[in-house]
Amino acid sequence: MQTSKVFFDVVMSLDGFIAPEGMDMAHANDPEYKQWMNKWMQLQHWMFQQQFFRENLKLGEGGETGLANSMLEETFQRTSVSIMGKNMFSGGERFWPEEAPFHTPVFVVTNQVRTPWERPGGTTFYFVTDGIESALRQARAVASNGDIRIAGGANTIQQYLNAGLIDEFTIHYVPVVFGHGTPLFANMNPDIKIKMREAVPSQEVAHITYDVEKR
Amino acid sequence: MQTSKVFFDVVMSLDGFIAPEGMDMAHANDPEYKQWMNKWMQLQHWMFQQQFFRENLKLGEGGETGLANSMLEETFQRTSVSIMGKNMFSGGERFWPEEAPFHTPVFVVTNQVRTPWERPGGTTFYFVTDGIESALRQARAVASNGDIRIAGGANTIQQYLNAGLIDEFTIHYVPVVFGHGTPLFANMNPDIKIKMREAVPSQEVAHITYDVEKR
Repeated sequence: MQTSKVFFDVVMSLDGFIAPEGMDMAHANDPEYKQWMNKWMQLQHWMFQQQFFRENLKLGEGGETGLANSMLEETFQRTSVSIMGKNMFSGGERFWPEEAPFHTPVFVVTNQVRTPWERPGGTTFYFVTDGIESALRQARAVASNGDIRIAGGANTIQQYLNAGLIDEFTIHYVPVVFGHGTPLFANMNPDIKIKMREAVPSQEVAHITYDVEKR
Repeated sequence: MQTSKVFFDVVMSLDGFIAPEGMDMAHANDPEYKQWMNKWMQLQHWMFQQQFFRENLKLGEGGETGLANSMLEETFQRTSVSIMGKNMFSGGERFWPEEAPFHTPVFVVTNQVRTPWERPGGTTFYFVTDGIESALRQARAVASNGDIRIAGGANTIQQYLNAGLIDEFTIHYVPVVFGHGTPLFANMNPDIKIKMREAVPSQEVAHITYDVEKR
């Protein structure tokens, strides 16, 4: 029996947003628009302090090596395959470095047929046009017993949650307030049963992990 | 110099609501409406398990005595005075037991002039018609060095937060998803600076405490 877990792991503002208002393809070249870049950096700031993150994105030497760093490294190591939606991919296609930061197969749920796109460093993007369940089946087929990360965005995570396909998730709560943006929890099936498993603080951020009960 | 802290302490759903949709004066006698009572109990469930809460509301013997219980007791003990908005008071006036669960002075921010309302057990409600800053001044005058709790609801908490009058706050994150309801963080001033101080899990709930930086 396959033991892969399906999970997501996101950074969220206190008021529940995983991306600020204005951070979209239309304003990708306009970081001043609604101050989206500044807000995005507030959300990501703690990650840029971590040694593993810096190393993985080739941002330079040094960095913190405490709990937050261990969590980031562990999340990366456990991930055999990622799945993402079309919007996240479109943003990433434009902004990831040539060596995309996954180093695994990535399944993109989209309506656009496209041949696999192989990047240096072990990341290959496969484009799935027949829905989230098909993407998950294909991910399981290559994951062996490693875990499968639903990378984002919010809409894709919501679809997997509502379909009962997520086993567990971690939210990194960053103490900023955006007012507007992309909420993690919208369009949710209220019958979903969630249990808190663990809550720990690091330097700037609280990390809470939840299990989703299987129906 | 007075050392009273001004704080709030709320229970919140994963998607950011401190009260479910439909929990309002118009539907106070209709607990089936939008299932508000059922959802409210999901939010409060962990508190009803705690010895201190059961004792304070005279719900009977027993209950848990771990971390969650200590937090509830400590919050009660530190509170010399509470401040609340008109909506919270109206709901409470109808549903609190005769011995209201505060046992301290309570200042109600309202537009309705009314003489103080004294309850058995040490709770007296004072009605303040000239705004949140006046209510806080009056609370400080009777708080000595005890702390002042902004009891709620969301709108009153937002007003105090945006005015820079809150020193610290605790959110108890309950793993339920409501979809709709009263959000804790709405109409927020995005310039408010918040720092995470502590994150701890108890049985069912994660408790995070934040400090608000003074401008």
